[in-house]
Order: sequence, then structure tokens, then C-alpha cells
Amino acid sequence: MIHQERVNPSSTSMRKILIQIDSDRQPSVFDAVVALDAGIDHLLPYGGVVADQVRDLVHGAIFTRGPQDLKSTAIFIGGQNVAVGEALLEEVVKAFFGPLRVSVMLDPNGCNTTAAAAVLRAAKHLDLPRSRALVLGATGPVGQRVCRLLARRGAQVRVGSRLRDRAAQVAERIGTAAGGDRLEPVVAGSPDEVAAALEGRDLAVAAGAAGVQLLPVAQWSACKSLKVMIDLNAVPPLGIEGVQVTDKAKDRCGVLAYGAIGVGGTKMKIHKAAIARLFESNDHVLDAESILQIGLSLESQGG
Amino acid sequence: MIHQERVNPSSTSMRKILIQIDSDRQPSVFDAVVALDAGIDHLLPYGGVVADQVRDLVHGAIFTRGPQDLKSTAIFIGGQNVAVGEALLEEVVKAFFGPLRVSVMLDPNGCNTTAAAAVLRAAKHLDLPRSRALVLGATGPVGQRVCRLLARRGAQVRVGSRLRDRAAQVAERIGTAAGGDRLEPVVAGSPDEVAAALEGRDLAVAAGAAGVQLLPVAQWSACKSLKVMIDLNAVPPLGIEGVQVTDKAKDRCGVLAYGAIGVGGTKMKIHKAAIARLFESNDHVLDAESILQIGLSLESQGG
Amino acid sequence: MIHQERVNPSSTSMRKILIQIDSDRQPSVFDAVVALDAGIDHLLPYGGVVADQVRDLVHGAIFTRGPQDLKSTAIFIGGQNVAVGEALLEEVVKAFFGPLRVSVMLDPNGCNTTAAAAVLRAAKHLDLPRSRALVLGATGPVGQRVCRLLARRGAQVRVGSRLRDRAAQVAERIGTAAGGDRLEPVVAGSPDEVAAALEGRDLAVAAGAAGVQLLPVAQWSACKSLKVMIDLNAVPPLGIEGVQVTDKAKDRCGVLAYGAIGVGGTKMKIHKAAIARLFESNDHVLDAESILQIGLSLESQGG
Repeated sequence: MIHQERVNPSSTSMRKILIQIDSDRQPSVFDAVVALDAGIDHLLPYGGVVADQVRDLVHGAIFTRGPQDLKSTAIFIGGQNVAVGEALLEEVVKAFFGPLRVSVMLDPNGCNTTAAAAVLRAAKHLDLPRSRALVLGATGPVGQRVCRLLARRGAQVRVGSRLRDRAAQVAERIGTAAGGDRLEPVVAGSPDEVAAALEGRDLAVAAGAAGVQLLPVAQWSACKSLKVMIDLNAVPPLGIEGVQVTDKAKDRCGVLAYGAIGVGGTKMKIHKAAIARLFESNDHVLDAESILQIGLSLESQGG
Repeated sequence: MIHQERVNPSSTSMRKILIQIDSDRQPSVFDAVVALDAGIDHLLPYGGVVADQVRDLVHGAIFTRGPQDLKSTAIFIGGQNVAVGEALLEEVVKAFFGPLRVSVMLDPNGCNTTAAAAVLRAAKHLDLPRSRALVLGATGPVGQRVCRLLARRGAQVRVGSRLRDRAAQVAERIGTAAGGDRLEPVVAGSPDEVAAALEGRDLAVAAGAAGVQLLPVAQWSACKSLKVMIDLNAVPPLGIEGVQVTDKAKDRCGVLAYGAIGVGGTKMKIHKAAIARLFESNDHVLDAESILQIGLSLESQGG
Repeated sequence: MIHQERVNPSSTSMRKILIQIDSDRQPSVFDAVVALDAGIDHLLPYGGVVADQVRDLVHGAIFTRGPQDLKSTAIFIGGQNVAVGEALLEEVVKAFFGPLRVSVMLDPNGCNTTAAAAVLRAAKHLDLPRSRALVLGATGPVGQRVCRLLARRGAQVRVGSRLRDRAAQVAERIGTAAGGDRLEPVVAGSPDEVAAALEGRDLAVAAGAAGVQLLPVAQWSACKSLKVMIDLNAVPPLGIEGVQVTDKAKDRCGVLAYGAIGVGGTKMKIHKAAIARLFESNDHVLDAESILQIGLSLESQGG
């Protein structure tokens, strides 16, 4: 121990620096506060970041500290636009030079931590490999991640969208990635379509745009098989009628309901643990699946 | 140890985060350094902030930490434009959700801390409830605050402007807010008008635009009643002819003179104390009156 | 109380604040990380800074802390454009008020730390007052600094450029500043011109634009007098054919070769030491010569 410290004093005293790359003009206060509360020492916030600025930012991260200290520098990619965030992540990874790299976490609009938290909460009540889920707003950035994560955990997932083609495209793409045929596209626009899509499901997740109601109370209350419903929309009107934003395993007519704030505590724990994970080595690329894994390991530790 | 953790572990270790909301493209170095010297742990600076960006910034402040820890996050509103700062404050307060709020301080262009410092310095030499003051440049952002604070402390205040209508409007508005008829509009443009306005006054405060002389030496040196004169302009030519920017209770022909730097030490103490106050609870909204109160309590502690 | 003030509590406990003034839209991560690793406590990063914003930034630095504490605030000027950086430095110095000033370091695009590192590495192998050097790409921002520093250390320097007029202008300007006639302009565009310019030289430094080859292998390998060659370009194709970016005193056909990364360790040490130097007093203006001096003092300490 002492010997180790003599050999390499800097890696123990290195301060943890997080580079916040955000596509919004004003970088997220939310992400900044969570990162500070997760124990980083210094935040370098960058707002309004566009793809061709990424290389210089990354080079500044990888060419300043010695290889053994690169784990004390990390990158967080945020912003409200998930697709832009994904493009920025590609640029970040392209800018690495072999072993000269730092860990990076993708969570624009909280998409990964939110999707992971929803799946974790569902797993509290359901055996996912036996679960049959309907995801509404499934073709959006959070919805796609919920579908992916549920399918990876073994659930049968209906990918719900108002548009059949869009649902089919997303189901096929995720199905390929998730390595199975557990995804089924469904049209879920009108109340009747939603009722049909919900039939036989024990889990419903609403992951649509803010302020759009996707699942009326008449439909879900008539569904005998439904056990858990999770609404990830925090802005009224919520995605599932009759759910409150603060619901946390609240019994509503026999269905356990979660609102966005009800899932928020789990999301926050995952977010902080993921930030901490970034500084354990210099080669993490934390996206949906790895962030869910972090959540699962928190659960197994009784977190 | 265990006991301590049961009581409230997080609120004792929480780092103090100040969110600097500034309407200028480059957020103020001045405000940043003072905040750091006032003991905050982390600054999140935001420049070029416009009204419709405020809600997300505030939500990031109030939705990240638990209710008992919200007092460790606060907001400072700066920038050179006071009216814009006031509009940003409105947006900040609108974005709070009941008890989910953080303390906020308004001090664009140093208007509140400067006005409070001027009033405090005047109170060193004058009994304010018996004082009769003339404020020149009284319709500007700092001048209005000086009038308000003097009237609240019981002084008779002449609200001086080159334009009678403007002076009358401001006097009426402040008079209503200050709850009395202690404000009198006066026209104070030409030397003769200024001399008339100054008659019988024991206090003169110049709060006009930078580089504009408001009170010539011939006028104030001829005023027998004048005891204290305070010039808040730091850029030559100063607002009161013959006053030096560093004057601090300097006797000039029998009148105690203050320049902007002479008031600066008091302003800085108030500024730092106000920042510290933000972190005592999560519900402060520090504007002119509350910032003067902080200054008064510093005085009473011998500060 | 008096005793406490004699000791001077504030100046010992004052946190070190570095104001990063960067002309690029996104301030440099590289400069930020190096500054944090050099021991500063807080970084205030400013990106996209233009000349007329400098005065307010500087005033915020000099008007916040007492004179004895100004050494705990400093300014770093970066950005990719060296000429813009030099203009920003002028604005910074103009904004000081006599003794109210803070230390400032100029290193846009790493020009000063890179030039100083190249000269220091050359001095490891050569007696500079007896050395005869050729600098290629000598009229660029790094090249000019290499010429200046070599001439100041007593070397005979050929100022190489494709354009005779440009070379002559730069040689004259630097010669005047360096106080001697140790600079000779040479045209060094075609291979024959480069071969002629290299004749009798023991040192060659390539300081041209990224990705432009200035010195082919046929030319340098035929030069009997050449002992050391340093390529400061990190982006292939390098400025000196046959040199690797990681070369560090690597023997290549009898010539000791350095690439940009081979010089990087020295550059980094100089950069960190220069940042630390800023906080020793409030009156440093660190440009090429003073930054080389810092490097030399590191060498003499066995750094």
C-alpha cells in the first residue's frame, strides 16, 4: 500500500474533473448539481456544444494527465435533444487515441437514467422474463430505451406508436440489438387501439412527449391483467390518466402506479452511482444497458 | 457517529452551490469572486441568460436535492441591466413549486448592495428619521433604491430628476411602496434647479449615470444645511464635483464626502453577508430592503 | 484581534482563483485541466471573449479583493488564435489601475510553453551561445517565439520562411527586441532552399502549420553539422520527415530527434510551474521570455 503510493503519488491525490458537454445553450443545472453531489471535485461546463467542437474538448481531456490518472477525468453528455447527444457521444469516442481515453456517460434529457429507473421499479413487482409489457410513446428517445432494457431483461414488449411504420422500424432495430424476437410493434393511437394493445399486459409504461395523454383511465382500469403502470411524464396532463406525478407504487384500482417523481428517487440514485462509476476506470462508455446494470448492482447492495 | 447520521447526514456535508444568473454575455467576475470569498463551495456561472431559459435553470436547482438540503443551493441574479435582472427574478420566483424553492439574491450592477451601503454610511452621521435628503439621478435603478431605503428608514426624500414627470412617477410609486408621503419630486437639471432642490437638505446622494456631473461645487458649497454627500459614480467626471472616488467621510469644506470606492468597503461587506445569508434557509428573496437589513445587522454586530 | 490582523489571516486562507480568458467559443479543456492540476482552487472560464469585454472582467478581478490578496487572483489568456490572444493581453494590462493589478499569463495555442520547451530541450544537448539554428515556419506565432528565445539565449538563428520579405520583417523585429544581430532571414521553401538554409546548422526546429512537411529526410540526413532536430507539429504529416511525434532525444541517423509529444512532458511542467508562479505575486506578466525563465529555473532545480 505504502509502496504503491510511493510509486504513483499523483493518482491518489488527483482531483476528479467532470467535463459537462451539453447541446443546450445553457448547460443543465440539474446535471451539474447531481454531479457535484456524486462527489466530483471540479465541473467544467460547456453549453451549446456542436459536433465539430468535440474533438478539441476531448483532446484537452486525454492529453493533459498521465495514463494512470486519466480515470480522474470524465465526460458527461447532456442536453434536451437525445439524438444530438448520441451524435456528440460518437464524436467523443472517435476522438480517443487507443488507450488515451476517458470514461463517458450519455444521459441527455435524463433518458438513460429515467429508462433504467422505470425498468428497476417494474422489476420490484414483476418477474421481467415472464412479463408482458406495453410501452407507449415507445419510438421516442426514452421509450426506445425502455423497450431495449425490458427486452434485454427478458420481457415481451409491445412497441406502441400512433404510426405503424415507425413502431415497426423501432421494434426491428431494437430487436436486432437486443438479440431476440421479444418486440412486437403495435399501433396505439385511438382509445380502441390502446385497449387492444394493452390486452394481456401486466406492465404499461408511458414515455411520450410532455403533456400528451396516452392512456385514458377507461382503458387501463378495464385491463384485468395490468399490475404495474409507470408514467414518465412530469408535466400535466400526464401520460396515464389518473396517475399522480408523485405516485410511488400507489395502488390505483388494483394497479400499482408510478409517476415521474415517484420514479425520481431511483433515477437520482442511478445517476449519482453512474457518475461515481466514471471515475473507477478510464474506459467506461455508459449508455442505457450499462446504466441499468449500475442500477441493478445498487439494488443487489440493498441501495 | 451513527446518531449524527440519523439526525441528518446530508445537510451537514452538503456543498454550497451558487447559480449565477447573469444577463450579460460574460457573467460578472466581480460577483463570482465575491461569492467565492463569501464561502460558497461551487459556482455555476450562466451568462447571456434570457427569461425563457430561467425555468429550466431553477428546476435543476429545486429538483436535485432533498427538501432539507435545498438551503445549500442558491441563486444570484446579476448583469449590468437592472430592469432585466428584475424580470429574471420574477421568472425565478414563478418557477418555484411551493416549498420546493431556493434562496435568491438580486443585485444586478450592484444596485442593491450599493444603495444599502450608501444609506448605511449616511446613517453613520445622520439620524435618518430626522434627515432631509436629496437624491440626484433618483429615477435610475440605484437612485430609486436609495430613495426607497431612505424613506423606509424615515427620512424626507427629494426625488431629483431633470424631468418633472419622471420624478413624480417614481416618487409616487416609491411613496406607495414605502407607505408614506416622505417623497417629494423635484426638478434638478440646471445649476439653479439643483441649488433650489438642495436647500435645507443635510444629505445629498448622486446616483446618476457614469460620467455625468450632477452637482457642481458652487451649489453644494453654498448649501449651509448640507452635512453629508455621497457620490456613487466611480467613473470620472464624478457626479459631485470636488469629491474624490476614494473619499470616505472626508471633510470637504465642512461637508463629509464619500466617493464610490469610499462606500465600496461597506458594499462589499453587505454583499458577502448577503451571499452567506442565502445558505441559512431556502426561502430568502433578497432585494433592496432585505439587503439593507443585512447591512444594519452587520452594523449592530460592530461589523 | 490586532495580533490576528498582523499575521494576516486572509492572505493565507484566500482561495486561488484563475480567470480563463479564451477567444474560442468553448474555452480550452486543456488549459483548464492543467490549471486545476497546478493547484488552483477555482477556475472561472470565459469563452468567446472579445476585446471590449476584457475591461469588465479585469475590473472584477482587481476590485474585489484587498491589495494584499490580489496575488490569489490571476488571469490566463488562451485560445487558438495567438494574435487575438496578444490583443487580449494588451487589453488586460490597459485595464489595470496602478498597483491594482493581478498576474497574467499568455499562452494561446500553447505557443509560449511550447517554444520554451523546445528551447529547453535543445539546451540539453547544445551550448546555445555557440549554437547555430534554423527555425522553419519561423514567421508563425510559435516560430517567432522560438527564434526570440534562441536569440536571447545567444544562438545564431536563421529565420526560415517561404517568403523572403516575411522572413526579413520578422528577423528585424525580433533582432531589435532581442538586442543583437543574431538573426538572419532565409528563404526556405523548395528542398534546395531548405538544404542551403540548413548548411552549417546544429539545430533545426520545425514550427509550421499542422500537417505541412517543411524538412524532407533527404535534406536533413545530408547535413553533417546537424545534431538536434525538433518538430513541434503533432498532426501528420509532421514538419520533419522521418521524425515520430513521440520521439524524445531519439537517435535518427545520428541526429537527436524530438516530436511534439516528446517535447510535451517539458511543456507541461513549464505550464504548471507558470500557473503556480502567477499566485506568488500580483504583478507578473508571463510571456515568452519569462516563461522560458521559469523552465530554466525548473531545470536548475533538477526538475
